[in-house]
Amino acid sequence: SRELFVLTYGALVAQLCKDYEKDEDVNTCLDRMGYGIGVRLIDDFLAHSAVKKCRSYSETADMIAQVAFKMYLGVTPSVSCSSAAGNEFSLILDKNPLVDFVEELPAERASLCYSNVLCGVIRGALEMVHLAAEVTFLQDRLKGDAVTEIGITFLRKAEDRKHKRN
Amino acid sequence: SRELFVLTYGALVAQLCKDYEKDEDVNTCLDRMGYGIGVRLIDDFLAHSAVKKCRSYSETADMIAQVAFKMYLGVTPSVSCSSAAGNEFSLILDKNPLVDFVEELPAERASLCYSNVLCGVIRGALEMVHLAAEVTFLQDRLKGDAVTEIGITFLRKAEDRKHKRN
Repeated sequence: SRELFVLTYGALVAQLCKDYEKDEDVNTCLDRMGYGIGVRLIDDFLAHSAVKKCRSYSETADMIAQVAFKMYLGVTPSVSCSSAAGNEFSLILDKNPLVDFVEELPAERASLCYSNVLCGVIRGALEMVHLAAEVTFLQDRLKGDAVTEIGITFLRKAEDRKHKRN
Repeated sequence: SRELFVLTYGALVAQLCKDYEKDEDVNTCLDRMGYGIGVRLIDDFLAHSAVKKCRSYSETADMIAQVAFKMYLGVTPSVSCSSAAGNEFSLILDKNPLVDFVEELPAERASLCYSNVLCGVIRGALEMVHLAAEVTFLQDRLKGDAVTEIGITFLRKAEDRKHKRN
């Protein structure tokens, strides 16, 4: 049923482009919608994936790429850690199914993060397992980049939070 | 990936409810969006379903229910013919996956056809195989009906069109 989803998502983005003149507003709206979706999707994910608790940010990033992306989008991004502190990761997508039916962004929508809903979904789902993160597109093939790259920055160490609680 | 689709569809309907005060306008917009989706989805359907050409309206209705609904929504509505002329059909859904996350319509949205995109998708897809049809919700569990029922009325006989061409 992926095609129906991808086309429906396209209709959603098109509607938001009608609603908002500025690309930034569309991007914000997609992120916010994604957040609401992620907050609800996490239950489904935990129920169907039968995954165990992640013990590190690195494991969490791998889980998002190898289990969640595979389950919901049918693709497996590669993961790289991009900070010495070990809290910044990149998901690199060779293929982004959300843009299957999009040839290119119109000239007047050059700043649109077409797939921005994904950032919100990841952020919302992580928040429900008590992980605060910033999630943004760092590269996007739709904008002429060689790959599509989603950056995830985990904001606080789990240990810090434990410490606070005690 | 159905949950992601269903939640994304919910975000789309919520956005349209923000955009349009009148339920009728939301319904029209969903139908129009669905039409655009159906027009593109038909290629995917024909490519992946490997179905043969339907020889009657009845076969077409069965194909929509047993192959297309199964493929894209994971459910198989039952089909009944509701006119002596043989051009009106009902698809009866015991379960409508699109409303999996919807408990009930808010009081101020009592006329909303929440799943109206489906009518547009069917209409658009049929048009691409040269079948004109009216597609509407006749019953909807979300509105308190016992089942969800989509009515399809084929508007012209294939024979009529052949005749015109000759």
